[in-house]
Amino acid sequence: MKCIKCDKKAIISYPVRFCKEHFIEYYLNKLKETIEKWEMFNKDDKILVAVSGGKDSSSLAYALHLLGYEFEGLYINLEIPNYSNFCEEKVKELFKLINKKLNIIRVSDYGVKVERVRNRPRCSVCGTIKRYLMNRFAYENGFTVLATAHTMPDEVSFFFMNLRSGNLNAIVKQKPVLEGKGKFVKKVKPLIYFTEKENLTFSLINNLPVCRLECPYAEGNTQNVIKNKIYEIDKDFRGLFNQTIHFLEKINIEVKDEEVYECIKCGYPTSSKDIVCSFCKIKEYFSKNPS
Amino acid sequence: MKCIKCDKKAIISYPVRFCKEHFIEYYLNKLKETIEKWEMFNKDDKILVAVSGGKDSSSLAYALHLLGYEFEGLYINLEIPNYSNFCEEKVKELFKLINKKLNIIRVSDYGVKVERVRNRPRCSVCGTIKRYLMNRFAYENGFTVLATAHTMPDEVSFFFMNLRSGNLNAIVKQKPVLEGKGKFVKKVKPLIYFTEKENLTFSLINNLPVCRLECPYAEGNTQNVIKNKIYEIDKDFRGLFNQTIHFLEKINIEVKDEEVYECIKCGYPTSSKDIVCSFCKIKEYFSKNPS
Repeated sequence: MKCIKCDKKAIISYPVRFCKEHFIEYYLNKLKETIEKWEMFNKDDKILVAVSGGKDSSSLAYALHLLGYEFEGLYINLEIPNYSNFCEEKVKELFKLINKKLNIIRVSDYGVKVERVRNRPRCSVCGTIKRYLMNRFAYENGFTVLATAHTMPDEVSFFFMNLRSGNLNAIVKQKPVLEGKGKFVKKVKPLIYFTEKENLTFSLINNLPVCRLECPYAEGNTQNVIKNKIYEIDKDFRGLFNQTIHFLEKINIEVKDEEVYECIKCGYPTSSKDIVCSFCKIKEYFSKNPS
Repeated sequence: MKCIKCDKKAIISYPVRFCKEHFIEYYLNKLKETIEKWEMFNKDDKILVAVSGGKDSSSLAYALHLLGYEFEGLYINLEIPNYSNFCEEKVKELFKLINKKLNIIRVSDYGVKVERVRNRPRCSVCGTIKRYLMNRFAYENGFTVLATAHTMPDEVSFFFMNLRSGNLNAIVKQKPVLEGKGKFVKKVKPLIYFTEKENLTFSLINNLPVCRLECPYAEGNTQNVIKNKIYEIDKDFRGLFNQTIHFLEKINIEVKDEEVYECIKCGYPTSSKDIVCSFCKIKEYFSKNPS
């Protein structure tokens, strides 16, 4: 099986047959085009890239580095046993390799834990904590853009989850760029057109330090279950992922424009007036229920 | 298992536990509310109900009759061996029961057949033929509304098929009501909030004459395959069907407003200027390839 651009052996067959060099070229071009098409950032921006140690965010950071962008990394140590510290090591290695500043914060420094909170499953608590801390860290440290490594299957499975729960507000926000507003820092998703396989390939051929463990809490997680069902549909009907992403870019839904209020505890954005935000509720819970 | 409204035995458990009487009440109320909410038609309209002999359209016709609407039926005999004539008999029985006029047309009268046309699979050819003939019959006979028995799972699977093929124009048109325009007669889908199981139950408890054969051509049909996958997802994550329908009602997509042109052969609506419509192409094909 040969590369479609030269005589060398192809190392990937889908979406396109490429040899190592042409795959890297393709990957970097697609990333650059995505960033420019959506005006995600330019070289004057102060960019923060959220990294987890996994293949997706490690590939993103490395590719941005190859493209010549200046940025810093943010690793949130979620303090998940047999997992988080190992990921942290991989992220440190990566940032040493690309010679960029890596910021590391720990959930316990903010008084929270990745554990069930009343009826809320652990993965949902983790999502709130990560979103809150990424944004807060970016805001407090003067970053103008926060880049996350959400991939095409991530976005498509979020769409199905939002669709099923009737959360139209969340669907409207599923865009490659969410402009900043008040204490919300601009958020961008440069890997929106990339599959997990493409990121895996990119990380492997560049020998990136990547944490290959799966999160020990992720089994049976709703998003993973939905993602697997969609993978099945996509296998039979190629194109579902791709087309859903383009669909999400084009739809408008008439939803009430959400006001953004400030949490009465921490001052960071929340959806209702005079309330404690979800993050502070989680914090309150753990301060009352120390285990 | 008791009805939630009385002490009688429930005959259905999902979406709600009802006895026979309360299920009929629920079914008719939901149908009436749907028609009124979307202003599908009023009693002054000249209504044509497309019927196939199956549980969905038979339930629709019978329920509209119980609600006091005046309408006529249209049965298109697709001339599918071991199938269409049997369905026709059931439709005739039903219309005798409700004492309403039934119009019957046959595809051969219009020079077409439900068979593969070059690359187009049989089910796709059948769809074009049905849509064209329903609309043409309604228009030629002065009907102001055409009602079809599309159900919730039908619409959801169309959505996924349109999503996957990137057909945003078709998604925009997936509304409970499509207003008439030129030779396009207004189209309404009163069963948009009904599941197949609800229609089956309604047809069974009213002893409606229903053709229980599955179309012999339907096996492996893309829509059925997709519908089954979505049923699987809905089983694990209750709510997908319902929420998708509400989502479709609310989205707007910026697509070019499609001009409607007239076919240069038959004069009925088509999407491009100076062309022969899909129906006439099918007809041309069979006139050149009589088997």
